[in-house]
Amino acid sequence: MSTNEIKERIWPAIEILEDLSELRKQAPLTHVITNIVVTNWTANVLLAIGASPAMVIAEEEVADFAAIASGVLINIGTVTKMDANAMRIAATAAKKAGTPWVLDPVAVGALHFRTELAKELLTQKPTVIRGNASEILALAGTVGGGKGVDSTAHSSAALPFAKELSEKTGAIVAVSGEIDYITNGKDTIAVPGGHPLMTKVTGVGCSLGALIASFLGIQKDPLRATVSASAVFAIAGSNAAKESKGTGSFAVAFLDQLSNLSK
Amino acid sequence: MSTNEIKERIWPAIEILEDLSELRKQAPLTHVITNIVVTNWTANVLLAIGASPAMVIAEEEVADFAAIASGVLINIGTVTKMDANAMRIAATAAKKAGTPWVLDPVAVGALHFRTELAKELLTQKPTVIRGNASEILALAGTVGGGKGVDSTAHSSAALPFAKELSEKTGAIVAVSGEIDYITNGKDTIAVPGGHPLMTKVTGVGCSLGALIASFLGIQKDPLRATVSASAVFAIAGSNAAKESKGTGSFAVAFLDQLSNLSK
Amino acid sequence: MSTNEIKERIWPAIEILEDLSELRKQAPLTHVITNIVVTNWTANVLLAIGASPAMVIAEEEVADFAAIASGVLINIGTVTKMDANAMRIAATAAKKAGTPWVLDPVAVGALHFRTELAKELLTQKPTVIRGNASEILALAGTVGGGKGVDSTAHSSAALPFAKELSEKTGAIVAVSGEIDYITNGKDTIAVPGGHPLMTKVTGVGCSLGALIASFLGIQKDPLRATVSASAVFAIAGSNAAKESKGTGSFAVAFLDQLSNLSK
Repeated sequence: MSTNEIKERIWPAIEILEDLSELRKQAPLTHVITNIVVTNWTANVLLAIGASPAMVIAEEEVADFAAIASGVLINIGTVTKMDANAMRIAATAAKKAGTPWVLDPVAVGALHFRTELAKELLTQKPTVIRGNASEILALAGTVGGGKGVDSTAHSSAALPFAKELSEKTGAIVAVSGEIDYITNGKDTIAVPGGHPLMTKVTGVGCSLGALIASFLGIQKDPLRATVSASAVFAIAGSNAAKESKGTGSFAVAFLDQLSNLSK
Repeated sequence: MSTNEIKERIWPAIEILEDLSELRKQAPLTHVITNIVVTNWTANVLLAIGASPAMVIAEEEVADFAAIASGVLINIGTVTKMDANAMRIAATAAKKAGTPWVLDPVAVGALHFRTELAKELLTQKPTVIRGNASEILALAGTVGGGKGVDSTAHSSAALPFAKELSEKTGAIVAVSGEIDYITNGKDTIAVPGGHPLMTKVTGVGCSLGALIASFLGIQKDPLRATVSASAVFAIAGSNAAKESKGTGSFAVAFLDQLSNLSK
Repeated sequence: MSTNEIKERIWPAIEILEDLSELRKQAPLTHVITNIVVTNWTANVLLAIGASPAMVIAEEEVADFAAIASGVLINIGTVTKMDANAMRIAATAAKKAGTPWVLDPVAVGALHFRTELAKELLTQKPTVIRGNASEILALAGTVGGGKGVDSTAHSSAALPFAKELSEKTGAIVAVSGEIDYITNGKDTIAVPGGHPLMTKVTGVGCSLGALIASFLGIQKDPLRATVSASAVFAIAGSNAAKESKGTGSFAVAFLDQLSNLSK
């Protein structure tokens, strides 16, 4: 696939504005099972944009909640054995109930326990898989498409593997990087923008996974929902960087931007 | 109960200033068992105001710590089976030691596991129960007073159920909302103020539960302690909104306000 | 030991600038096992300074990760039984692999469960032990050097016990306080500076432990690495206080300072 076959979606495309407006209207209930580093940040990101986050993590509760939520995120960043069970239950329940769900395979490939878990979760058919280039390469490898991890990989380098991963799993695959690439295996959309400071605040990428789960709750086309979420982050990040003095004030400005975007 | 039977306490009532001053002097050791979304924020809220937060959560440690703390918060927001055991032990120890404790029944009613847990915890006689209108309605239902959850309920609509819950449990019941209502079953005090941005930063309500636990450590009248905590939050929220550009800067300004209040 | 035997390292000592520059160049992979209150903050501190934090906490993963990391922090602040097992495994793996590691014995002495755990962890030979005066006194007591906890202790009062603890364990011991003292049992270095606001934001001390683990990854002399980390914090805290209006804006300014220091 040559680069000029990739469509670019630049803010403010009308579809993105429509989706954002709809998200603010519906405040989709988003079930977030994520790592302990980013729970607070992720909740604040979703509240800022206008979604309704709920972090329900008990084995006893996740199935019921995944069934009533309008979108689910499963992020394996700090997964323990107990969390892994809850994730299996939630993914199974989401699939059964038809709730769209996002898999964020943090650090997959590098560690055996979570790599096996990610493979298992793939069988529950995530609607979207979001990761950085290394993670997408590694995950593609587990389904026979890639050749292991390259921690220095650029998002464009991972694109062929992302397409293969998408074809094998049926999921939209989003590769985060300087440019985000989002593919359904055939069409690929590039979302440029953002700012390097987004990699210097923990959880920005992780919270994008949650935001995608929110957009899936109000936009039935998962490719479009994923693009809208990514574009919202790119513009908020780019704007926030202009008013920041360092990583601390960038995080604050990023939330401010999300809460004011397109108002 | 008619509206004019509700006493309003408007900041700066002299009692509130006295309590705040005493809290700053004593820096009460507050034992916080809360959900993983808001631990960091809650600790920062208590530090800002001048209390001494301590998040001790192990089954092996909570009994000893609840006995030496001057107040305990139990918030079931992200409760797991392991957490539930620690909460039972902590509540039992608090009751036995005479340590005042606050129950925050997050999302009770909506999910079976936590609803059963909340009912169990009620038997350990919380000093204060704090929740939003829906949670108070649901919890009242579990003790025979309410009729299930209404997620769109206003705090005033929950007031009759709050009074009944208070009468049946002996706890002060605080219903958070645009106006906070705090009742001991007979007297009800309304605390106006605050700002809608307080619902757009995760953990503001949850940290109010912790702040009530701190005030219980220095003010023996639990109705007054709960009113003081709520009033402090209302004024800090109202002031912070004036210097905010969005949800991110509101959170920062809210902590700044708490740390400077009445100095 | 008389006060004039303590060497003071005042920023900007050339070694500190060298170490900071090297840390930014190498971005050392720092394995952080810490308490649930400060995970987000700690990750943001390490990202701001230029290190690469990774919070891997599962029993199934910590041994592999401690072996490939360039430094490990183990902080027992909210330890549970499950966490304790992961900590034992991580400490053992770090020792076996020769990965330098930091023990932060939060609230040791006050609670039996964690005190026993800290004693166990000491057998895996931490490279550095960091705590406040009370914690160092208490930990020294567990190895026969001190006389229990004094929660009002000043860092200077703990110094003789810190030296004894260092001699008995072979670890560098860092006592945080108004002045930080860092000792290898013979030489002691005092790091003045900082600001009282650093005690009013949760996790500042805890994240210093993580930063020491990062510096250990790029500086083979553990005394120097610990001094460099402490000095970086002292200057960032002092500068941040000048631009703060309260505890909320101090936390933001502290991260900004870390991300801009010496650029």
